Amino acid sequence: MRRFAAERARDLLRSHSLQRYSRRRLLSSLTSQSQSRFLSSTSPPDSPPSMGSQPVTLDTINPKVLKCEYAVRGEIVSIAQRLQQELKENPGSHPFDEILYCNIGNPQSLGQQPITFFREVIALCDHPSILDKSETQGLFSADAIERAWQILDQIPGRATGAYSHSQGIKGLRDAIADGIEARDGFPADPNDIFLTDGASPAVHMMMQLLIRSESDGIFCPIPQYPLYSASIALHGGTLVPYYLDEETGWGLEVSDLQKQLDSARSKGITVRALVVINPGNPTGQVLAEENQQQIVEFCKKEGLVLLADEVYQENIYVPDKQFHSFKKIARSMGYGENDISLVSFQSVSKGYYGECGKRGGYMEVTGFSADVREQIYKVASVNLCSNITGQILASLVMNPPKVGDESYESYCEERDGILSSLARRAQTLEQALNSLEGITCNRAEGAMYLFPRIHLPQKAIKAAEAAKTAPDAFYCRRLLDATGIVVVPGSGFGQVPGTWHFRCTILPQEDKIPAVVSRLTEFHKGFMDEFRD
Amino acid sequence: MRRFAAERARDLLRSHSLQRYSRRRLLSSLTSQSQSRFLSSTSPPDSPPSMGSQPVTLDTINPKVLKCEYAVRGEIVSIAQRLQQELKENPGSHPFDEILYCNIGNPQSLGQQPITFFREVIALCDHPSILDKSETQGLFSADAIERAWQILDQIPGRATGAYSHSQGIKGLRDAIADGIEARDGFPADPNDIFLTDGASPAVHMMMQLLIRSESDGIFCPIPQYPLYSASIALHGGTLVPYYLDEETGWGLEVSDLQKQLDSARSKGITVRALVVINPGNPTGQVLAEENQQQIVEFCKKEGLVLLADEVYQENIYVPDKQFHSFKKIARSMGYGENDISLVSFQSVSKGYYGECGKRGGYMEVTGFSADVREQIYKVASVNLCSNITGQILASLVMNPPKVGDESYESYCEERDGILSSLARRAQTLEQALNSLEGITCNRAEGAMYLFPRIHLPQKAIKAAEAAKTAPDAFYCRRLLDATGIVVVPGSGFGQVPGTWHFRCTILPQEDKIPAVVSRLTEFHKGFMDEFRD
Repeated sequence: MRRFAAERARDLLRSHSLQRYSRRRLLSSLTSQSQSRFLSSTSPPDSPPSMGSQPVTLDTINPKVLKCEYAVRGEIVSIAQRLQQELKENPGSHPFDEILYCNIGNPQSLGQQPITFFREVIALCDHPSILDKSETQGLFSADAIERAWQILDQIPGRATGAYSHSQGIKGLRDAIADGIEARDGFPADPNDIFLTDGASPAVHMMMQLLIRSESDGIFCPIPQYPLYSASIALHGGTLVPYYLDEETGWGLEVSDLQKQLDSARSKGITVRALVVINPGNPTGQVLAEENQQQIVEFCKKEGLVLLADEVYQENIYVPDKQFHSFKKIARSMGYGENDISLVSFQSVSKGYYGECGKRGGYMEVTGFSADVREQIYKVASVNLCSNITGQILASLVMNPPKVGDESYESYCEERDGILSSLARRAQTLEQALNSLEGITCNRAEGAMYLFPRIHLPQKAIKAAEAAKTAPDAFYCRRLLDATGIVVVPGSGFGQVPGTWHFRCTILPQEDKIPAVVSRLTEFHKGFMDEFRD
Repeated sequence: MRRFAAERARDLLRSHSLQRYSRRRLLSSLTSQSQSRFLSSTSPPDSPPSMGSQPVTLDTINPKVLKCEYAVRGEIVSIAQRLQQELKENPGSHPFDEILYCNIGNPQSLGQQPITFFREVIALCDHPSILDKSETQGLFSADAIERAWQILDQIPGRATGAYSHSQGIKGLRDAIADGIEARDGFPADPNDIFLTDGASPAVHMMMQLLIRSESDGIFCPIPQYPLYSASIALHGGTLVPYYLDEETGWGLEVSDLQKQLDSARSKGITVRALVVINPGNPTGQVLAEENQQQIVEFCKKEGLVLLADEVYQENIYVPDKQFHSFKKIARSMGYGENDISLVSFQSVSKGYYGECGKRGGYMEVTGFSADVREQIYKVASVNLCSNITGQILASLVMNPPKVGDESYESYCEERDGILSSLARRAQTLEQALNSLEGITCNRAEGAMYLFPRIHLPQKAIKAAEAAKTAPDAFYCRRLLDATGIVVVPGSGFGQVPGTWHFRCTILPQEDKIPAVVSRLTEFHKGFMDEFRD
């Protein structure tokens, strides 16, 4: 009823010429506009026509919003939610009994359990008045109680319900800086830490700072995590792509970077920053140290801000690869505060903790002048602060229990259990995918995803064209309808033109993996039989 | 050392001509730019000069960021933080022993205690594994345990650590819609609710949707809460002011609205929306029902989106005023979904709960077409979801304990204790201010602020000019230096040119109010004696 009414209203508006009139008015007036943001109000009024009800249409919203796309929660997920509803209302209405969301890195939604120590501490910080009750000893570990006290003592008035400093509670930033130092072996400054509601707002903040117009370019890997393309679109900049080489395990060729940079500059684009996602999303590769050094050298030489998405730093599944932060790499090369502008993004949503719903994260901002830093602080201040629970969690993941703490052993057991299981799942899914006709899949060295390439038969590509959809979207939709498995078409991340992929998380619980494999295999065989040229 | 290095780097950059070079390059290339967001990379490279290290300067960041101001955490607060540090390191170094932050509506930072029931529920949801332990019965009230179970049952897999639906957990939106219905007596649709990390991101989301260029105007009250001017600046729009009439208790004259609207349109500005803050921030007035009806009528007639900041809906301190949501007003006038586009903002940071640090809030979006709603959903999706603890808290403040619940009486006691104390504090401070020479102060009917007018002597205004600062900033700085009381200059909110004000919260705990009054009185007398003409 509501929807019907809304659509009726929209149709009315579509035919509403006044909208067009005011749009033209806007465009023609753009050039003559004064620059002043506050409008003075002296000149004589005129009386334009009333604009009627529901003044906002797709024609009159910010076109940057229209342009923005975010496939991870795009059409395929809306369809999945509809199917889930249908299954609920009418069990047996589909050839599967549940929807398996492999579209997004959301571990706890698929049954991963949170780390007990982390939850104990945040529960105690949320309700401190139980801290000195006797029953609490029986419910919570001693070191969780101790840690909660430590954290509360770092918060003015122990007020976990107060806005904090715009960058986050100082004591928690100290703990995070300690964690970074322990990780990298190089000093970290708590004043460089900006705590945010997950990593996404931090990325937006940097895009907002760097992008002035569509003549400003941001270098992004292709394939990329669509937060970057979405944020660049929302801020009106230009995404300058560099392609990861699937043949060499999603390798990053600096010679290619140079080619792309020169080409962008020749088009009048000022490239401001280079985004690197390591470990890779959606591609799952872990960069080699030498490769990271080349990237640092390139950014320094070309005067690019290095935006390092390092949210998967704990997610490494192969013995021959290791995580190195870009700050550690730059410092080991002898580059200091004045040599390179570097931002590292971290989140509590990934790693072995997977606390997506807590929206905790931070960015470490180094190599910016004091006055630019003040501007970043100002933008952070407009939103007052990030949520305190997320801030506390960020300090915990960067400072987990240590040897000798009561929770240390159980913490290690939980952590290692999750990470080794993820490694097994990655390997099983990768092998299963590679065993399928026309599918090749690089190994997931890290992160939470596989990004297999599907060599689709011409017949399938034609069928997709007939259905007015991209071939990989066509495949993913068929997969969903047949199996209830939700994956994201490669076109949502960008891919070499003419190649087709999908992103599939490795997150279904281990006991479900065999079912995922068999459902996927059965579907794929049927699909190929149907469309084989 | 770091700061020294950073400043040195900045100075180097200041003299770095390549920056200017690339800036000119950008400007000259603006016109010739293609519209494509993804840049293809085919044309022959050229080799521009290297840009050197630290490529980002004030000259090369987004000018919208430079423009944006947020006085609530502006210079005066930075100075206060410095003084606090000095007091800590060197007690007795100032004529006061503590800094009293009256600059921001942050109740728990000044000692307000959280509502026990709310904290019990979120602690239990943070650590559900204690829910069925026997000790838990002794630590938590029965209805908090019951409510936690209810909430967990509404979360798929009871996973409070998972990303939720982009609009927030459906079951929590149901609870919020129920609360809105109970408040207004008109239906509310959970699909109209977008849960956000406090109200600020919701305001940004609407500005992002509505503002296409500086030719798009947003109507804002003057004085206004600077989130609005900041968000409009960041999104590149134009703030179209309408002045609240201090003489009539910050009344809103619709005839003035019409005058301002006509004037803006005559300048080629397309006014998209009208912001109303009720109860008022910084002005503390509560709009009369008839006045609200006139505003609704005006927005409908002129085709403006009504953006209703209703975060202080629980903060009413006078018997002759009542809160009515704009949705209730519009619906009582017979206007439905198709008649007016209306967004209501609510937050867990204000009211009697004052849970600023939890960053919970929502916007209720009504009267938008389905396809525009999809665009709002898409933007919400890019940030995945708001923090789950904040979502839970938002559902609790809209659905507190009810008669018969174990916690009901203690909850009412805590709530009424806070609200009646706030009312007393408002009255005491208002009377104290009005008793001072050259200060007039409207009563705080609601919200958390007083916004007194200071009639400054010419001599003080000249002294301010000599100090190159606004007269009200000059007064506030002197107040801080003499008393440690932090208030925000009126110029940060906007005021009728030639008038001077400051915003002072009513949030210091009641036992501190006498000291605040005497320190303020003593300072003001001295100030007037020093500058009396």
